[in-house]
Amino acid sequence: MGEPVSTLAAGSVGTVGTVETQYLDLPKPVRMDCGRELHPIRVAYETYGTLSPRRDNVILVCHALSGDAHAAGFSKTPPRDSTRDGFAAEERDGAASKGLGWWDGMIGPGKAFDTDRFFVVSTNLLGGCRGTMGPSSIDPATGKPYGSDFPVITVADMVRTERAFLDVLGIERLAAVAGGSLGGMQALQWAILFPDQVDAIVVIASTHALHPQGVAWNAIARNAIMGDPAWQGGHYYGTGRAPHAGMGVARMVGHVTYLSAPALSDKFGRRLQFADDIRYTITEPEFEVESYLHHQADSFVKRFDANTYLFTSRALTYFDLARQHGSGSLARALEHVSARTLLIAFSSDWLYPPSASKEIEDALRALGKPVEFQVIEAPYGHDCFLLEEARQTPIIRRFLAERQAGE
Amino acid sequence: MGEPVSTLAAGSVGTVGTVETQYLDLPKPVRMDCGRELHPIRVAYETYGTLSPRRDNVILVCHALSGDAHAAGFSKTPPRDSTRDGFAAEERDGAASKGLGWWDGMIGPGKAFDTDRFFVVSTNLLGGCRGTMGPSSIDPATGKPYGSDFPVITVADMVRTERAFLDVLGIERLAAVAGGSLGGMQALQWAILFPDQVDAIVVIASTHALHPQGVAWNAIARNAIMGDPAWQGGHYYGTGRAPHAGMGVARMVGHVTYLSAPALSDKFGRRLQFADDIRYTITEPEFEVESYLHHQADSFVKRFDANTYLFTSRALTYFDLARQHGSGSLARALEHVSARTLLIAFSSDWLYPPSASKEIEDALRALGKPVEFQVIEAPYGHDCFLLEEARQTPIIRRFLAERQAGE
Repeated sequence: MGEPVSTLAAGSVGTVGTVETQYLDLPKPVRMDCGRELHPIRVAYETYGTLSPRRDNVILVCHALSGDAHAAGFSKTPPRDSTRDGFAAEERDGAASKGLGWWDGMIGPGKAFDTDRFFVVSTNLLGGCRGTMGPSSIDPATGKPYGSDFPVITVADMVRTERAFLDVLGIERLAAVAGGSLGGMQALQWAILFPDQVDAIVVIASTHALHPQGVAWNAIARNAIMGDPAWQGGHYYGTGRAPHAGMGVARMVGHVTYLSAPALSDKFGRRLQFADDIRYTITEPEFEVESYLHHQADSFVKRFDANTYLFTSRALTYFDLARQHGSGSLARALEHVSARTLLIAFSSDWLYPPSASKEIEDALRALGKPVEFQVIEAPYGHDCFLLEEARQTPIIRRFLAERQAGE
Repeated sequence: MGEPVSTLAAGSVGTVGTVETQYLDLPKPVRMDCGRELHPIRVAYETYGTLSPRRDNVILVCHALSGDAHAAGFSKTPPRDSTRDGFAAEERDGAASKGLGWWDGMIGPGKAFDTDRFFVVSTNLLGGCRGTMGPSSIDPATGKPYGSDFPVITVADMVRTERAFLDVLGIERLAAVAGGSLGGMQALQWAILFPDQVDAIVVIASTHALHPQGVAWNAIARNAIMGDPAWQGGHYYGTGRAPHAGMGVARMVGHVTYLSAPALSDKFGRRLQFADDIRYTITEPEFEVESYLHHQADSFVKRFDANTYLFTSRALTYFDLARQHGSGSLARALEHVSARTLLIAFSSDWLYPPSASKEIEDALRALGKPVEFQVIEAPYGHDCFLLEEARQTPIIRRFLAERQAGE
């Protein structure tokens, strides 16, 4: 048994300080599920904390669709583009990767992923646009960016790339793999592909297979991007045009699905943007919620590559553990898992609802595997995994401490 | 009191037979909320049943965003375009308006709106693209289609146009106004604008003000259309291009919001379109639900005008009875209503949830007004108002019979 939660949570909490994204080229090709090989794969990564002499304190943190390697601490410089003449470098402000990391509230001394104990590794996922090889990278065969010729990748491809990357760092075993949403899918995939190398997984606001409505939302977002003539069949790099209009719509759809309806009501209501009456316009945002969506879209298209959105969206809709590993049976897919599993879901998350995590819990429990499932009552929808740090922290700290105490 | 439901529901049920859409030009201008006047307004309409000598058996049926005047019976010919050189006439197949009317299951002898008793009138709403004046109509001031210069209309403008149209027909009082979704908004608006001329309203799957998430979905749909370069600032008529890509995305968003997540799961699951495995493509639909959305989008863009979508979407997001008529108070907005009110909502409708109808019920009840609210447990989301005819019918028949019995 671990220490009582109260003691753990009461420790002093700090920051990992100033960090810089690093880059590493994998020495060997990695074979994708579609049959193609990628080489050389560059991986952008950051690390926090200190690797133990026995190399047994490593936690791999996996990000979601729009994240990057800069998970914690303060960064003065944005990560380099995947390629110098890759996507819209001239337009990128790097704002998302400067400043605090996307999970800074969860990673650091005394935090959920405690860098006083653990060596936390965070990579930009395969297919990304923040330093790791993706559609905006140069295809060595043509000397031009891959664009839509990039292989259609899977979550398993992302995980095999992470495995190959950790090999280079000399890390064989992982104390834990953790992530939310698409990051949680990667954690599950790790436990299935490399059962002997993962002690624990922390799967937050995620699923074993996106439900059909989620498949639909993702299809709509991709259609918005690909229907934008500026997408140019996926070969827009260097043309001076990018599918910003379509990406903006995709991001708006995403944002509404990440939030709950009550959260939108609480945050914006039906308040108007200007005076307290309508202005009879169809082209301008009039409601505050409309203005918010515009702002989110505008800032996203400046920092994110449309093709990366397409490929990662496709990967997460493909993800289906029962189909891929169990001939339709989730229990069969999970039967070789040896990692202890912590599942966290949020009551208001309708994109990755608690019911999906419950199905994973039930399957693992039926197999006699160690699993813990916590539903946090919180109103912010799927975004909770980025917002509800204070309530996730004691759960995760206790779960990870139990592992340490048990060894 | 009306007859028992069982007796009413057991009557013989028939069809209104073959019908043809008719057209009428209003003799006088109608003033819009924005201050502009429209003239001459052509209205497309159909009627079913027989007008009583006292002209006291008229039910006005109002359609939703994508409907038209052809509500019941069988039509051999699609309605004329609003203008000869209006929107994409060459592309329209008229499929939506040929064949059976969109509410044929609800209108006819022995049906919910019983044409043995009532004279049912159905018009295409102002701003429409199925015969009534809308953005694709010719602006008499320029000789060209209005396009985005069409006045930004409100639900009240639609209702004033319906009022002016009925004046021409010599109909002063309405036994009832009925509609679902945007049609229900029109019914509510009728009861507020013309309290002495409406005996009853039937408000189905509707609201007094769309909730903020609904505002967001509508904003996303409009952005998809307006972000399509083929929209051309709203002046695409006659250019040989129309914002089909954006309209397709808008329709996809609409479809997902009209259905419930469980309905999508039941209907499509995560079944793949082709063989039982993925094909590693981002450009083609792979899941059945993706293919379904493509099909819905493709058929919609052929039959519907993008500008009509924009203007009606804007009108329904503006609609806010408390703001427009009650200085923020729904009770004040409803205080002069004299119509008996029937509210029907569906348990799985998350776009127009039962809670919104409940707020209308509570306000009317607090004012001592006659109101009945029925929630139908059904899984198909907002689309229930078009699908759950059998369960709506006895409720509506009894409600309308009570009126007749009471007089």
